[in-house]
Amino acid sequence: MNYRMICRVLGMILLIFAALMLLPLIAGLCYRETPVPFLKTMAVAAVPGCLLLLPKPEKNSLVARDGFVIVGLGWILISLIGALPFVFSGSLPSYVDAFFETVSGLTTTGATVLSDFDGMPRGVMFWRIFTHWIGGMGVLVFLMAVLPMSGEHSMHIMRAEVPGPNVGKLVPRVRHTARILYLIYIALTLIETFVLCIAGMSFYDALLHAFSTAGTGGFSTMANSISGFQSPAIETILAVFMILFGLNFNLYYLILIGSVRKALTNEELRDFLLLILTAVLVIAAALCRNLGYGIRAALHDAFFNVATVISTTGFGTSDFTQWPEICKWVLILLMFCGGCAGSTGGGIKMSRIMILMKSARADLKRISRPRNVFRVQMDGSRVENETIRATYTFISLYFVLLLVFSMLLSFDGTDIATSFTASLSCLSNVGPGMTQVIGPAGNFAFFTVRSKLLLSLAMLLGRLEIYPILVLFAPRTWRR
Amino acid sequence: MNYRMICRVLGMILLIFAALMLLPLIAGLCYRETPVPFLKTMAVAAVPGCLLLLPKPEKNSLVARDGFVIVGLGWILISLIGALPFVFSGSLPSYVDAFFETVSGLTTTGATVLSDFDGMPRGVMFWRIFTHWIGGMGVLVFLMAVLPMSGEHSMHIMRAEVPGPNVGKLVPRVRHTARILYLIYIALTLIETFVLCIAGMSFYDALLHAFSTAGTGGFSTMANSISGFQSPAIETILAVFMILFGLNFNLYYLILIGSVRKALTNEELRDFLLLILTAVLVIAAALCRNLGYGIRAALHDAFFNVATVISTTGFGTSDFTQWPEICKWVLILLMFCGGCAGSTGGGIKMSRIMILMKSARADLKRISRPRNVFRVQMDGSRVENETIRATYTFISLYFVLLLVFSMLLSFDGTDIATSFTASLSCLSNVGPGMTQVIGPAGNFAFFTVRSKLLLSLAMLLGRLEIYPILVLFAPRTWRR
Repeated sequence: MNYRMICRVLGMILLIFAALMLLPLIAGLCYRETPVPFLKTMAVAAVPGCLLLLPKPEKNSLVARDGFVIVGLGWILISLIGALPFVFSGSLPSYVDAFFETVSGLTTTGATVLSDFDGMPRGVMFWRIFTHWIGGMGVLVFLMAVLPMSGEHSMHIMRAEVPGPNVGKLVPRVRHTARILYLIYIALTLIETFVLCIAGMSFYDALLHAFSTAGTGGFSTMANSISGFQSPAIETILAVFMILFGLNFNLYYLILIGSVRKALTNEELRDFLLLILTAVLVIAAALCRNLGYGIRAALHDAFFNVATVISTTGFGTSDFTQWPEICKWVLILLMFCGGCAGSTGGGIKMSRIMILMKSARADLKRISRPRNVFRVQMDGSRVENETIRATYTFISLYFVLLLVFSMLLSFDGTDIATSFTASLSCLSNVGPGMTQVIGPAGNFAFFTVRSKLLLSLAMLLGRLEIYPILVLFAPRTWRR
Repeated sequence: MNYRMICRVLGMILLIFAALMLLPLIAGLCYRETPVPFLKTMAVAAVPGCLLLLPKPEKNSLVARDGFVIVGLGWILISLIGALPFVFSGSLPSYVDAFFETVSGLTTTGATVLSDFDGMPRGVMFWRIFTHWIGGMGVLVFLMAVLPMSGEHSMHIMRAEVPGPNVGKLVPRVRHTARILYLIYIALTLIETFVLCIAGMSFYDALLHAFSTAGTGGFSTMANSISGFQSPAIETILAVFMILFGLNFNLYYLILIGSVRKALTNEELRDFLLLILTAVLVIAAALCRNLGYGIRAALHDAFFNVATVISTTGFGTSDFTQWPEICKWVLILLMFCGGCAGSTGGGIKMSRIMILMKSARADLKRISRPRNVFRVQMDGSRVENETIRATYTFISLYFVLLLVFSMLLSFDGTDIATSFTASLSCLSNVGPGMTQVIGPAGNFAFFTVRSKLLLSLAMLLGRLEIYPILVLFAPRTWRR
């Protein structure tokens, strides 16, 4: 391992992170709030950040493992430091609570321990939701977009931070790819802010909810989330943007360079939209039949909640834990799926589910015609065996982790449905679970310290797609 | 497809199945019960059985797909016919109930719709539990043991019916392998019957509980299962035999031919016993701490219930749905695992879990040393990539099916924990679920007709390890 180079990148992460804190600081100043909590945190981040930059690396090279280690350690570091403004401002006096909230923010989960929203300064609230935006596209991708780093090596970092089975470069240079991704991200965020302002939100609320949607996070400025605005128009706008941020960003790049046809015929897009449509219809039918909703209201509520769950955002309008059981299971299945590869959404990712299904179908065909070769194809080109294998490994590990976390949560006496859906929701970075206590109307405050730390670990494993965190625990990684 | 040959084998299955019904008929006659229900059923099985034998196949050859189709169709056929004695005798007037009970018997699940045990004639009760014994080792393996079939082709049938990632022949001839397996099976069953008689059971109860243990089924002659005998000795004997039947039968063969050392150093055996030990200790600790059990009672109860769940038998002594949550999750994890490959137990199978873990570890190592080749090994020899791929496919499909069945069950308003653990329990052929209504003290009678049929399908998918049933639904199978 290139320890010096790893220290150097970690130092840069800390400095960038300290710089990003200027935004909530300024937001706080606009509302005449004290900048002290942020200044203290920036100092805590910047001093070790500078120290880490001191040792000059002998060579610039990074291997795949280094990329994983940087991403794993980097995310843990910024979670530890990002929690400080909550503690310094007194908004969340318990450091564990603040850490949980920050991990939930950075991993774009959106599970909260907060019940009193009015006591929080606006600058701190800005920080709380801004972490979604930072974590959505990734702090290291940001680093690559703004700093000069040699392309070949930074690709290892990009692969470790950006979700999906196949991370491709849009353009030959990683730095340009990172810039394009961030420009699309910023543009979409600004468009959403603008549209939300038109629909009647204040600029502050609009910007923060755009941050939250962009990262597919789910934090809101209100205790009762989106239902607090009582505006079907805002709900529809948010639902549409949640889906937009759940799509592969490569599609937007394709549209920008004029390959609209290629973007619109994308298989993952087609299946993602089909899945949303099916889920909306099933849930709406159940709402009409079992709860006596009108068709229009049923479709509206079903659309919003399907969008919020499949994009792994987790905004709340209705308490779906009170819906018919079939609705809950449809939403649980969507939690597993999550967004498209290369989106800011979490979960297993649509394209992995598709590879699983296509590969299983090929296996079935192979039983009938053992001598034929059945290739798995996506968008007309062959999926490599290595990708299929990695997909299966990921999905199997995902399920194993889910069961292990469910079991560990039950140590504190949490019932089956709560421990299972809390683990799933955190691992998939959704936010709310499927029982009332952790549903859209509940929160995660009641969990013990041990459970909160476990769920924080689950969120990090989910956001970074397991390996960057797992690598940190492997003794082999630290062996010379 | 060789339709004529498939018909021929299906005909033989029906005739063998009719012949096997002589045993419960004789048992009934011993207790002066009417043989009419069995005679009627035997006629229903034998007439189409003879007709299917009529068309002479042009060639004997069977390909892999034919093996799957025979096993899939054969099991559905005998489930449909095996339900008739319950209906004809009036013990279960509803055919769907009788079908569920028969599938549960043949797949060695042991989930019951029965609440009134006293009204059932002893011959019918014999049949009910005898189905466990038939299904445990497999009706087609039995067919191969007694009938002359050409070795190469019958291997395809054997592969489709015997569980586990790698079905090897013990000896060069399939027929001899099948005979050896059945002889071990019969011998162990008789030993267990003898031991249970000594421990104070009547011969009838001892034989039937030995059948139930041998198939790792879980049906009992008593409404309150094993707790009805109120004998810790009987419980311990059953627990030991449940674990013995959860082991790979190849080990017994190795011991018989003198390779004791090779049998005892088997990796799957070691991990299986280690897992049992860990689970017993965790559960016993929780019982002592949370429910105030004495150490001895806690270890006894933990051992019995760990054995009954990991072997996927499902006998009941205590209502573990009332235990602390951590115990439930440990048992849920054991339900996933199931027995060893080549045992009569269900679930994913220990060796598949081991391949998953070893392969994930190799992946982690590969991140650190991308240029090295890390091979997955079991018992000193390399696991082929094809086996690893098939293992991952199986585990992923298992989880997908579990979620789909849970969702489908919730259509009838079943809550999350019940639908999830009922689906898991049926897919893994365990029996009881993890909520009170379907726990060791409950039963499956309250499910709707639709849910009962769904769970029957889940049990068949679990027992036959997915593909033989899935192949029947693939249009390609039936295309010329």
